[in-house]
Amino acid sequence: MSDDTAGLLSRLLDERAIVATMIHYADRIDANDPEGAAACFTVDGVGHYWGEHHGRDAIAERLRGILTRFTATSHHLSNPAIEVDGDRARATSYVYAFHRLAGTDEPMHYWGRWVDELARVDGAWLFTERRVVGVGAISPGNPPADLHQPGHPGRLAHR
Amino acid sequence: MSDDTAGLLSRLLDERAIVATMIHYADRIDANDPEGAAACFTVDGVGHYWGEHHGRDAIAERLRGILTRFTATSHHLSNPAIEVDGDRARATSYVYAFHRLAGTDEPMHYWGRWVDELARVDGAWLFTERRVVGVGAISPGNPPADLHQPGHPGRLAHR
Amino acid sequence: MSDDTAGLLSRLLDERAIVATMIHYADRIDANDPEGAAACFTVDGVGHYWGEHHGRDAIAERLRGILTRFTATSHHLSNPAIEVDGDRARATSYVYAFHRLAGTDEPMHYWGRWVDELARVDGAWLFTERRVVGVGAISPGNPPADLHQPGHPGRLAHR
Repeated sequence: MSDDTAGLLSRLLDERAIVATMIHYADRIDANDPEGAAACFTVDGVGHYWGEHHGRDAIAERLRGILTRFTATSHHLSNPAIEVDGDRARATSYVYAFHRLAGTDEPMHYWGRWVDELARVDGAWLFTERRVVGVGAISPGNPPADLHQPGHPGRLAHR
Repeated sequence: MSDDTAGLLSRLLDERAIVATMIHYADRIDANDPEGAAACFTVDGVGHYWGEHHGRDAIAERLRGILTRFTATSHHLSNPAIEVDGDRARATSYVYAFHRLAGTDEPMHYWGRWVDELARVDGAWLFTERRVVGVGAISPGNPPADLHQPGHPGRLAHR
Repeated sequence: MSDDTAGLLSRLLDERAIVATMIHYADRIDANDPEGAAACFTVDGVGHYWGEHHGRDAIAERLRGILTRFTATSHHLSNPAIEVDGDRARATSYVYAFHRLAGTDEPMHYWGRWVDELARVDGAWLFTERRVVGVGAISPGNPPADLHQPGHPGRLAHR
């Protein structure tokens, strides 16, 4: 196998492994398992969830607070755009999330981007940084004050 | 090519083929083709659609009954998590489905998981078992009585 | 590496590149960048957006007109079914798009298919033809008159 071919296969496998990490994260969130989701970060990883949270414990704590608001969530991943550079990678992907609100049982919908930086640690791809970037939401009553929606990254003004 | 590399490429190809089966199934459902969807199962496959249906004929019959309720459906697959073991595989994936109800023309939304077991038969990956596991739905009026929603597989209680 | 293995890896890479073009197109649309989206077409490509638009300039012009109606869009791609034949390919994929309407700020939802023909030009996969085929929409008030919805390609009548 030529070096070139080995490199191409290697890139496919890295991209597959990175998407698998994203899917596992969504699975853990939707299983109401904040520790399991936080374990998708490196030990000193940073999660941006309407605020900056450093390290797995802080990330799990923040995620637990968010998840408490819902009796069901469903995070549907799509459009992964990944750039691998050795043991580092950057990725932007799309997420739509269905939520069922605790208390009222009403649905809430969320559309956003996951903007990630990842590192390969002992053969596994983990988030060193994950930003949740809101594009839109439909929520009963007024959206929560912390639900800032910057929109699609790099979105241009109408001309 | 080393055995290891051959194995990795082989796994990528198997995962791709399994996702292709899932996509073909969705295409056949959305084309209102219950026989075509049932052909994605092995001859003695089992479909769990709010009830247990054995074999392609029974599956097609059940799917026809479901599809009769709708003038349009759109099953959007995401988050495939696949484990291949030789000629067998297990997979969990996410589905969101848009429906237009026959009669009233009102929209219905469904979020769930497809929990699958598959086998390679004559080179093709087919479902030996497919479970539809509901996570949520938005339906005009009361949801149909058969629309049980067990939620995300393995979901933990709030602590 | 055997010819067969090389061919299989090559097909995986082509499919990956084609999906990457679709994802880049969605990114450019959602960034309100009609020229960037039109650059995903060959120079003489044809875009079918409720009307037939020939060449990148005409496509960009048409897309700009559509995008002006919205303050936010989010095009979520799924279910890509791709057939590569040398330097040509055909693909059908699913799209769900969230929109925020300019003026009223109300949400609009769209479900459809992207039915594509592509060509490899200087190593890049570009659309020679892209058809937007509507399956359903939820829009405040009456849907716009140009929003024809032919439904899932090849959908069968109920029997």
